[in-house]
Amino acid sequence: MTVEFLKTVEWVPLSPESLVPGKVRLIDQTRLPVSLEYLETDDVEEIWHAIKVLKVRGAPAIGVCAAMGLVAAVQNSSAVTSDRLIADARKKADYLASSRPTAVNLFWALARMMSVAEENVGMLPVQILVRMAEEANAIRNEDAAMCRSIGAHGVALLNEGDSILTHCNAGSLATAEFGTALAPIYTAKERGIGIKVFADETRPLLQGARLTAWELQHAGVDVTLICDNMAASLMQSGRISCVMVGSDRIAANGDVANKIGTYGVAVLAKYHGVPFYVLAPSSTFDVSLATGADIPIEQRDPVEVREIQGIRTAPSDVAVLNPAFDVTPAELVTAIVCEKGILRPAYGRRIAEMIAC
Amino acid sequence: MTVEFLKTVEWVPLSPESLVPGKVRLIDQTRLPVSLEYLETDDVEEIWHAIKVLKVRGAPAIGVCAAMGLVAAVQNSSAVTSDRLIADARKKADYLASSRPTAVNLFWALARMMSVAEENVGMLPVQILVRMAEEANAIRNEDAAMCRSIGAHGVALLNEGDSILTHCNAGSLATAEFGTALAPIYTAKERGIGIKVFADETRPLLQGARLTAWELQHAGVDVTLICDNMAASLMQSGRISCVMVGSDRIAANGDVANKIGTYGVAVLAKYHGVPFYVLAPSSTFDVSLATGADIPIEQRDPVEVREIQGIRTAPSDVAVLNPAFDVTPAELVTAIVCEKGILRPAYGRRIAEMIAC
Repeated sequence: MTVEFLKTVEWVPLSPESLVPGKVRLIDQTRLPVSLEYLETDDVEEIWHAIKVLKVRGAPAIGVCAAMGLVAAVQNSSAVTSDRLIADARKKADYLASSRPTAVNLFWALARMMSVAEENVGMLPVQILVRMAEEANAIRNEDAAMCRSIGAHGVALLNEGDSILTHCNAGSLATAEFGTALAPIYTAKERGIGIKVFADETRPLLQGARLTAWELQHAGVDVTLICDNMAASLMQSGRISCVMVGSDRIAANGDVANKIGTYGVAVLAKYHGVPFYVLAPSSTFDVSLATGADIPIEQRDPVEVREIQGIRTAPSDVAVLNPAFDVTPAELVTAIVCEKGILRPAYGRRIAEMIAC
Repeated sequence: MTVEFLKTVEWVPLSPESLVPGKVRLIDQTRLPVSLEYLETDDVEEIWHAIKVLKVRGAPAIGVCAAMGLVAAVQNSSAVTSDRLIADARKKADYLASSRPTAVNLFWALARMMSVAEENVGMLPVQILVRMAEEANAIRNEDAAMCRSIGAHGVALLNEGDSILTHCNAGSLATAEFGTALAPIYTAKERGIGIKVFADETRPLLQGARLTAWELQHAGVDVTLICDNMAASLMQSGRISCVMVGSDRIAANGDVANKIGTYGVAVLAKYHGVPFYVLAPSSTFDVSLATGADIPIEQRDPVEVREIQGIRTAPSDVAVLNPAFDVTPAELVTAIVCEKGILRPAYGRRIAEMIAC
């Protein structure tokens, strides 16, 4: 079965003859799930703003957007020499890098783009632009291939008739396409394996309700939305076959940092004998951290808990805890799936071996 | 320490000389937490509407409101004979009983009021009214005394410095005053025992955020609001001493039905070695049900999950599960506290003994 998946970020060619690819087009995720709207632009300030206000979000998708956005913005450069073109690109890359101060993929993608530009300083401006466009495409295609590979490995964990619980959004909308936690689900869909997904809404920012439910529904996957506190009851009645979640960071021992609420789901899965799978690119492993205790947990604005999209739902001055992430200890993780394969306990040794490859 | 607790429902005397008590005054809970507003009325349609649209909610509070509201509405009767007064009261009681079709306390309180009226058919209309007012006061005061008694028993489970996690609202706002799950917390406050409360916001209807956080803050209790999916992380870091929740129904074997999400909290408490206490009046025991499997679970409108106070947060046509309750098996319950004392396992025998008393 061929399934049309969303392109979170893509090119809009100016003309078939153009040597450079034109504008960048991205799904405006701040408009979801109410409407599917695209932003098409070659304006560096619009691209910066899109990353800043989360029109595009998810570390891989941000990296791809910045790389493509840089090419789109630089092709309008009035620079007539390669030196000036590279200076213009450097200025725009530095500016784009200031949009989200902690997004590692953003810096990584822009650094990779500028290396390509600077390696080709002796070439004509248009040739440098073509090389940059090729590099942006490579970043995008590598991300898509990595997601496809996670899907191909992860689908082996699924059986006909399974019901998968997921938390937050580690899907197509967080990557160039296809996603990480949702990759095996899309692969199952392509292969005609009948599955069903339960999506936690994921308070406080509701990525599950706004994004995961929307993108699965858009791809024709059977999805049911639940409040976070309903997952236990579903497991109790035997309606969850396995859990699939993404990760923001995995320590050397296999402890997993992910969106707040993931740890609770992992404990519930353990209690009910439900497999708990983590799906993430190998770049998520941070072997400089011995255990999850070394992972810093961001505390976010209390207003996110006291209000929902501007509507106040709690006393305006009540004390609030709002951690963005929690850490699931390795002993609750049944397997970790990355683009290189499926890791099972003991994770310490398996992760070290994989990183060494 | 004397703490001024909220009166969820109370009388407003028309004058000091009046033999009958005047209007009924209730906190309009639909306005919380944004503002504290009262409804004062002796109009039977306003009272019916207040129950219907949840200006007053919580089974005990609804019973008290219906009893007091019936007296307030009947004292305006133009009936000059006792027969006519009782006929008028019957009509108004039947009308009030139609406001919430499944609220057991509502029917129970109105039946008790009509018994008193009919037992006194030979008396003057004003004498019947006075007896009805006494009965409404008795219903209110019995409820308050029951809550105080739950608090007095339950406070023995708390120690100086404890942090209590609660879910939904089984507080002052659900009863005449003082609450059930929150009763030991208020008792601790009165006795100067230093405690701290974490309140789950309780999706989808946010009773924890809107009501529990508000009423605890109003009473000067140290309360911190969290999203439901943050409780696991708090237990993981050792910050929860015990869980205290209410109940809608308890089966003969000690299985507990309560607001959706309660079961998940119970599993998390078990996993982390945190005591899990259920606090409810003895009228909550339904020994006609052998186990929790016999408790019917209401499925509510999907719109409650797809929207939050009218703001859409999910695709408008996405499938949703929205069970109002879940069932916590008795083996996860450390103790059940009612007005008669603290029950511990094995619950089957203890509950039978207590009901037989």
